[in-house]
Amino acid sequence: MIEFEIRHKDLMGRIGRLRTPHGYIETPTIMPVINPNLMSIGAEELKKHGAEILISNAYIIYRRADLREAALKKGIHALLGSELPIMTDSGSYQLSEYNDIEVSNREIVEFQQRIGSDISVPLDIPTPPYVEREQARNDLEETIRRMREARAMVHTNLLTGVVQGSTFLDLREESAKCVSEIGFDLYAIGGVVPLLESCTFAQLVDIIMATKLNLPLNAPVHLFGAGHPIIFPLAVALGCDLFDSAAYALYAKGKRYITNDGTRKIEDLLYLPCSCPVCSSYSVNELKESEDLLASHNLWVTYEEMRIVKQSIVERSLWELCDRRCRAYPSLLDALKQMTRYSMVIEKYDAGTKHPFFYLGDSSTHRPEVLRYADRLNRFTISGKVLLTTIPISHGKVITGQEQFDHLLFVKPPFGPYPRGLEESYPVGQSEIPVVVDNEAKTVALQNVIKLMELNRNRNVNFVFLYDPSWEGHPMIEEIKKYAEVWKAEWGERKRK
Amino acid sequence: MIEFEIRHKDLMGRIGRLRTPHGYIETPTIMPVINPNLMSIGAEELKKHGAEILISNAYIIYRRADLREAALKKGIHALLGSELPIMTDSGSYQLSEYNDIEVSNREIVEFQQRIGSDISVPLDIPTPPYVEREQARNDLEETIRRMREARAMVHTNLLTGVVQGSTFLDLREESAKCVSEIGFDLYAIGGVVPLLESCTFAQLVDIIMATKLNLPLNAPVHLFGAGHPIIFPLAVALGCDLFDSAAYALYAKGKRYITNDGTRKIEDLLYLPCSCPVCSSYSVNELKESEDLLASHNLWVTYEEMRIVKQSIVERSLWELCDRRCRAYPSLLDALKQMTRYSMVIEKYDAGTKHPFFYLGDSSTHRPEVLRYADRLNRFTISGKVLLTTIPISHGKVITGQEQFDHLLFVKPPFGPYPRGLEESYPVGQSEIPVVVDNEAKTVALQNVIKLMELNRNRNVNFVFLYDPSWEGHPMIEEIKKYAEVWKAEWGERKRK
Repeated sequence: MIEFEIRHKDLMGRIGRLRTPHGYIETPTIMPVINPNLMSIGAEELKKHGAEILISNAYIIYRRADLREAALKKGIHALLGSELPIMTDSGSYQLSEYNDIEVSNREIVEFQQRIGSDISVPLDIPTPPYVEREQARNDLEETIRRMREARAMVHTNLLTGVVQGSTFLDLREESAKCVSEIGFDLYAIGGVVPLLESCTFAQLVDIIMATKLNLPLNAPVHLFGAGHPIIFPLAVALGCDLFDSAAYALYAKGKRYITNDGTRKIEDLLYLPCSCPVCSSYSVNELKESEDLLASHNLWVTYEEMRIVKQSIVERSLWELCDRRCRAYPSLLDALKQMTRYSMVIEKYDAGTKHPFFYLGDSSTHRPEVLRYADRLNRFTISGKVLLTTIPISHGKVITGQEQFDHLLFVKPPFGPYPRGLEESYPVGQSEIPVVVDNEAKTVALQNVIKLMELNRNRNVNFVFLYDPSWEGHPMIEEIKKYAEVWKAEWGERKRK
Repeated sequence: MIEFEIRHKDLMGRIGRLRTPHGYIETPTIMPVINPNLMSIGAEELKKHGAEILISNAYIIYRRADLREAALKKGIHALLGSELPIMTDSGSYQLSEYNDIEVSNREIVEFQQRIGSDISVPLDIPTPPYVEREQARNDLEETIRRMREARAMVHTNLLTGVVQGSTFLDLREESAKCVSEIGFDLYAIGGVVPLLESCTFAQLVDIIMATKLNLPLNAPVHLFGAGHPIIFPLAVALGCDLFDSAAYALYAKGKRYITNDGTRKIEDLLYLPCSCPVCSSYSVNELKESEDLLASHNLWVTYEEMRIVKQSIVERSLWELCDRRCRAYPSLLDALKQMTRYSMVIEKYDAGTKHPFFYLGDSSTHRPEVLRYADRLNRFTISGKVLLTTIPISHGKVITGQEQFDHLLFVKPPFGPYPRGLEESYPVGQSEIPVVVDNEAKTVALQNVIKLMELNRNRNVNFVFLYDPSWEGHPMIEEIKKYAEVWKAEWGERKRK
């Protein structure tokens, strides 16, 4: 029924092509919010900034008699002046803000149909984080009831199934399973705006994963309310495809300038750290005085970051991008660490890679590729006398006495042992690591050395472990002595000052 | 004599205002190379991209009779069609490439004077890295001789003293001292292009520091040949003020697209990860077919990065920027680590800071602020019963029995102990750290706990160290038992799946 073709993949992220009644869009993408009451940047302008699809609020249109009449008469595309696909929200956000709205699920779903929305959303209940479990459960039941109600009404255009459940991961899982069972064209993760506002990104990672792993893989997933670019790399890496941004305009209203590493008060800028069409044509002072210019910059930089994310999917360097971007805030670093806890799961979705593996800090130690490598250590067939050494393969020729061994394996952090035959293979042979590698990476490499030794314990293999002075003092070397003869090489790390 | 006013500082980086015969420029800045033989982007266009000063090659002009005549007749500004300040290089680069050139130091220095160059450079000898010491020393002696010769000739416009010495740090130091003694208006670090080309950034850090620490602080420093933006944050943090870029054009010629995290072959791009005037108006395919468009993009992104660097100096967040940018390549991560080895020195130049301290990975553990904090532990006056705890200050109220203590100190990674009175003070009180902090940060915090206990050893202070379960198993807790009663709290880190 739904057409969503996946063209490139990296981690759990993907570049996809989604068909809507108004044509195809490419994901991941951002839907800028267009509010018919105040169109500071009109639909044509949004398109110039990079918009392939817009999002508007059906409830806002519904509530104002003149807009409602106009939308019913000529359709939402004519009302907003665009032939781009348009998604409409249902008023859930207003529900979360004001606790009550004057429309029923049935009414707003029907209204979205009649005005020709390409993608509709039922009136779900956005339960905030950290509520009592009782409330989260009750809200969820009502949300599910409304999902079923909407599903029965909508047949022609696309319909979104919304996942709620507050910060209860089991409720998120249950919610995701339930909407999957009902069956929607798209799925959305709702109720996370307060987490975004409080920068509780690690918990957002948990919620996305609990949801995502229980939704159909081949359907697009919308992360509701995540419009700031700092979250794009991580959210896309975890499998989110659609984002909506009111942020570009709201931040401009608050005199805030968006960058891919955060937000600045425009009054704090002496220089414009950007070269978008606005920032390369206007001065800081001109931006200070114009909300429209600021909104336009915010939108340019938002689409720029999404193109960066897409290019890194194509290159399969999305982890590296996350690693860089998550150094914008300590709370994003927490989220990156939280993502590493799902590496085992992500590894199942991740389809190898062609970009060289860059070691960029201890988070790299827990990448899916490293776990996968450890899993495959049982593929090495070794016997007899085996030399394992931390001396880099580039210096392997100078190891004297290597001819007395049946096998020579190099130990490269964070992967561990590998034979010369894998010198060109991804990931171990295609990885670039710093000259001075941190302890975490050495630890994982040595764990894999021990794992290999354990795997060959009953095979009558004699191991010798030869380490160079830069590994001196690593506590695991003692442990290796249980399995191997341990030698120390004269070889040192490259001399510096 | 020379006017160079420093307006903002962070680490060893600064924003300065330099007077030249053709007006003021603001540093740090990039001087795009303009070659009178092939001006694909003319002077006016360079200015639109952000250029405040240009650099050209006096030797190239000197060598071609028609250009030489024109330059002598109407001056270099008219020849290049610009009233911006113009620096000229002397042909040293050609010397390094072709080993011999057809001009003497005296001739080329005089020529630079006559054509009205704002900033001249003597014909130094760019010794490559890793040569024999003998060669480096001989080259250096000749370079110094030429520096003296040039100094005696130039009185009206600005003259650059060039530092050489290959990869011998003592020769770099000697060279820097020597040119400082002779006295120049600007100083330049030469002979580093091969290190940049081979991404040997850690060694570049050593060379910059060896030089910089022996030059007058209040003079601008030019890092010769460093035109790729990935090096700007680090080089500026270490005190470089001027950069030249032929890269923007050379990379374009090689069909390469510059980004602030590296370089892409244009043929590998499916998306343009940028929103500069070129990338927001043209398609990938149009860029593939136009070297001029590519050069223009390269220049936009080069100036963009320099504005990012400048803004981060104003905000005093340059360390954080380096921390992010150095995650582009493992070899840059090496350079970042190398920079931490100079933290003690950098700390002396670094003037406090106003941006909150963001903990962004183990490199943050070695920041100047952390070293400075350890140095000031002797300022705490404590006596009697002292409770030190890893429980965050935000939860400090729930610590039962705290009233029996004379002092309560919180232990925050990576700083260590601090009293409630410093809750709002930089850096410890103004630092944001991840919820899950790495071992390195805990280690430094505990080292400072021990340091405080040592400092108060003879003062009859009774210490109790109360740690929460997230610190369980840290090896230094055993050591603390030598100085304090150690208690374990029931308090845990926030629960996550």
